[in-house]
Amino acid sequence: MERPQNQILTIFGASGDLAKRKLLPALFELFMRRLLPEKFRILCVARTPMTTRQFRESRAAELSAAMGEFHDKQRHIDEFFETVDYFSFETADTEKYTSLKNEIDRIRKQYSTGERTLFYLGMPPSMYTVTADGLKACGLADENSRIVIEKPFGSDLESARLLNKKLNSIFSESQIFRIDHYLGKETVQNILVLRFSNGIFEPVWNRNYIDSVEISATETVGVEKRGAYYDSAGALRDMVQNHLLELMTFVAMECPPNFKSDSVRDEVSKVLASLRRMDERAISKNVFRGQYAEGEIDGKKVAAYRDEPNVDKNSTTETYVAMRLFIDNWRWGGVPFYIYTGKRLGQKRSEITINFKSTPYTLFAGQCEGRSCNSLTLRIQPDEAISLRFGLKVPGKGFQATQVAMNFNYSSLADITLPDAYSRLLLDAMAGDSTLFARSDAVEAGWKFVDPIEKYWEKHGGEIPLYPAGSDGTEEAMEMKLEHLNSVCSLPIVNELSSNIEEKA
Amino acid sequence: MERPQNQILTIFGASGDLAKRKLLPALFELFMRRLLPEKFRILCVARTPMTTRQFRESRAAELSAAMGEFHDKQRHIDEFFETVDYFSFETADTEKYTSLKNEIDRIRKQYSTGERTLFYLGMPPSMYTVTADGLKACGLADENSRIVIEKPFGSDLESARLLNKKLNSIFSESQIFRIDHYLGKETVQNILVLRFSNGIFEPVWNRNYIDSVEISATETVGVEKRGAYYDSAGALRDMVQNHLLELMTFVAMECPPNFKSDSVRDEVSKVLASLRRMDERAISKNVFRGQYAEGEIDGKKVAAYRDEPNVDKNSTTETYVAMRLFIDNWRWGGVPFYIYTGKRLGQKRSEITINFKSTPYTLFAGQCEGRSCNSLTLRIQPDEAISLRFGLKVPGKGFQATQVAMNFNYSSLADITLPDAYSRLLLDAMAGDSTLFARSDAVEAGWKFVDPIEKYWEKHGGEIPLYPAGSDGTEEAMEMKLEHLNSVCSLPIVNELSSNIEEKA
Repeated sequence: MERPQNQILTIFGASGDLAKRKLLPALFELFMRRLLPEKFRILCVARTPMTTRQFRESRAAELSAAMGEFHDKQRHIDEFFETVDYFSFETADTEKYTSLKNEIDRIRKQYSTGERTLFYLGMPPSMYTVTADGLKACGLADENSRIVIEKPFGSDLESARLLNKKLNSIFSESQIFRIDHYLGKETVQNILVLRFSNGIFEPVWNRNYIDSVEISATETVGVEKRGAYYDSAGALRDMVQNHLLELMTFVAMECPPNFKSDSVRDEVSKVLASLRRMDERAISKNVFRGQYAEGEIDGKKVAAYRDEPNVDKNSTTETYVAMRLFIDNWRWGGVPFYIYTGKRLGQKRSEITINFKSTPYTLFAGQCEGRSCNSLTLRIQPDEAISLRFGLKVPGKGFQATQVAMNFNYSSLADITLPDAYSRLLLDAMAGDSTLFARSDAVEAGWKFVDPIEKYWEKHGGEIPLYPAGSDGTEEAMEMKLEHLNSVCSLPIVNELSSNIEEKA
Repeated sequence: MERPQNQILTIFGASGDLAKRKLLPALFELFMRRLLPEKFRILCVARTPMTTRQFRESRAAELSAAMGEFHDKQRHIDEFFETVDYFSFETADTEKYTSLKNEIDRIRKQYSTGERTLFYLGMPPSMYTVTADGLKACGLADENSRIVIEKPFGSDLESARLLNKKLNSIFSESQIFRIDHYLGKETVQNILVLRFSNGIFEPVWNRNYIDSVEISATETVGVEKRGAYYDSAGALRDMVQNHLLELMTFVAMECPPNFKSDSVRDEVSKVLASLRRMDERAISKNVFRGQYAEGEIDGKKVAAYRDEPNVDKNSTTETYVAMRLFIDNWRWGGVPFYIYTGKRLGQKRSEITINFKSTPYTLFAGQCEGRSCNSLTLRIQPDEAISLRFGLKVPGKGFQATQVAMNFNYSSLADITLPDAYSRLLLDAMAGDSTLFARSDAVEAGWKFVDPIEKYWEKHGGEIPLYPAGSDGTEEAMEMKLEHLNSVCSLPIVNELSSNIEEKA
């Protein structure tokens, strides 16, 4: 595998949780697999005054604690941190960026890393604009620089447009990498390979053969330490606008003419442009929110959302969204896409299920009459797997059908460790490949779809339906859910894909 | 499950191999599973003079030896044989059938088994006509009787027609059960359930999406004890005319309007009627025969066919057939069906593989460009399984495809023992369900297809190509094989369906 060209990676917000829990471990994984550029430095930037040595030591200790045992661990970790520098810096002050430039110039010179720089904005969204301005002011925003922006990218259409406008005034679109770690996951990327490297799926991948599509991302955890951010965002902004709509575009897109980044992203945009906008009546019938009350998860009592740290005691922020949407194009017209997401639900599971239409008539006993009994499930979490549900003859006398599954589990690929989503995306950003990053038009299209729902809730807000932690969501969503469940087979699968792999973080 | 109505099963040729190795064990299986009629007797008929007690004892000992250990084995076997009577009888003498009728009447009276009788002709084909005549002469061939005929059903079109004419003059078609034990196998029956209880296969199950179909039934064993019969028959008559053409009809048939026996058999006949007849030129290009020479199987030297017991030292009988055929109808026009069968080949495997066409263009590295990379394999032997080959993303950077398989193995169905093929078919015959038995028109259509090939070989015979035992067949078949193999992907499957289950008899 080719390594990206030499460069410096500058991480803003390097003292934060993201850098600690995701970025540094992902970079260490790339380091261990020798996928980092030959001449490469990581410059960690944050406000906290600290020396490089202090930073390295504290982070190395954390990384070491988080990792399992392996050969020569400490030596590898120390070697890795030798590529890391720390720079204490007041990001909010655009005047001071010259000092950052000087530091980068020093590193460039000392380590011959070349002109290329990648800036990772791992800081609160409120800082994006000022950081971009600062980089421009000091001359760091030149044609050799790239910038990675974390979600949330705006909090509504207007703020996203403003942010895009600002960034696009400083960087060209090809220099901007709006990261969505969902797209870093193997199963998600595999949707495209599965669909477009095989001849058998595409012929039935349309409204003539598909009954419905279900995209679920449910969690058993609560809001955890993210109360302050989450309470101002909610599940619709936090999960639907970005992750789940992205997944939907991968399931729904036309085959691009080639696999260049803009070819793929053009197809993403076309799907989003075909999303049916909802008026208030449509929203009331197709979108349901909820918030978790106290309840039980795995036999343990857990607190209500409103009792979580840094959450408003009277919060009406949704922690659950159930939604039915439609894509008005020739491939998908009339096919409902169901989205389910939420925290503190009964099970942790991220998966996409394509339900195919039932047979035209019922020939065998045991068939799920008139319902979809074929489904293709792409499981993203807790374990990555693919499963095809189909009817099989019950062994023995007569011709009776039963429901079984043909399974493919990634764990059956010996010797292959699934790479971490951040590793994959960091590597792509370093190499300048933006296929798996959201383009400005896609981000805006997402907000265009989501904004009317947020407005509807604001208008009709006040009360939000509650669901007990550990349940399957709110009662209000039930009617829509029943309609969905009625169209798919309820017969049990005899050899259901086991999911007894331990839940990952 | 409903039991068949009360009846007597009369087995002709009861001292032979078939009764011993297949019929009595199958009946014992049905006995153990309580699927036999409530009032039921088995009357074993053969020439050898023997008392019922002697017959029971010798067969019980054999059955006991063939079975593994299980709870109360001997008691169950003894109980089973209490339902068995033996009747020594000269089948060739139609005058003597009155004595058989008397014996059956005696049993009917003593055990209140009712009027229903099933006659199983487990004897050499030369005896079929005289037996049918005898049954008629003594009045046993009434509307309450059914007759099961073993293969071979005729040795060419003319003899099959004569036999059909004779049987149909005595029995109605619905009373005649031409048995093909291949159709008793779960995976074979499942072809129909798989195709017609699922909505996802049928849309791509035609010439628009299928590149080719392969039907293989290869064996590692030689001709064994069947030299005398086999040398007069050959692989084309022994395997292709019946088993493999039947498999082909199951793969190729249209969906019947219901699952009544004649609805299904009508569809079988339609496929056979659409088989493209071959003239001499077509035969020379599409049909290849061979005979095994000495060679090695599993490291052991094995004899040439001509050195097997009861085989002519100058025999030109084929033990191998490779064939390409076409079905000229709207669903299958232009799709080659490849048939491979033979004895003393490199591996034992019976399976059907549907190769789907390649994608219209190649988007990802690692795709099998321009070749069929999707295939659905229905494995009949050595283990019963289903496997779908497809392209998957190689985990990691970039978008590269690799070949994997989604597998369903019958062994994953806990608590279900696959019933023996003969058990299933015996039960169907007792219940009068002829769905899985060949109808006269199908048998004749098979011969109509096979006869010109036999004639061609007779005409051009003299020499037959040889292949070493343990190889993949003759060199003469290579050009056709290469054409076949060139259209399908040759990339290895990463997680290929393992077949380390011990070979069954």
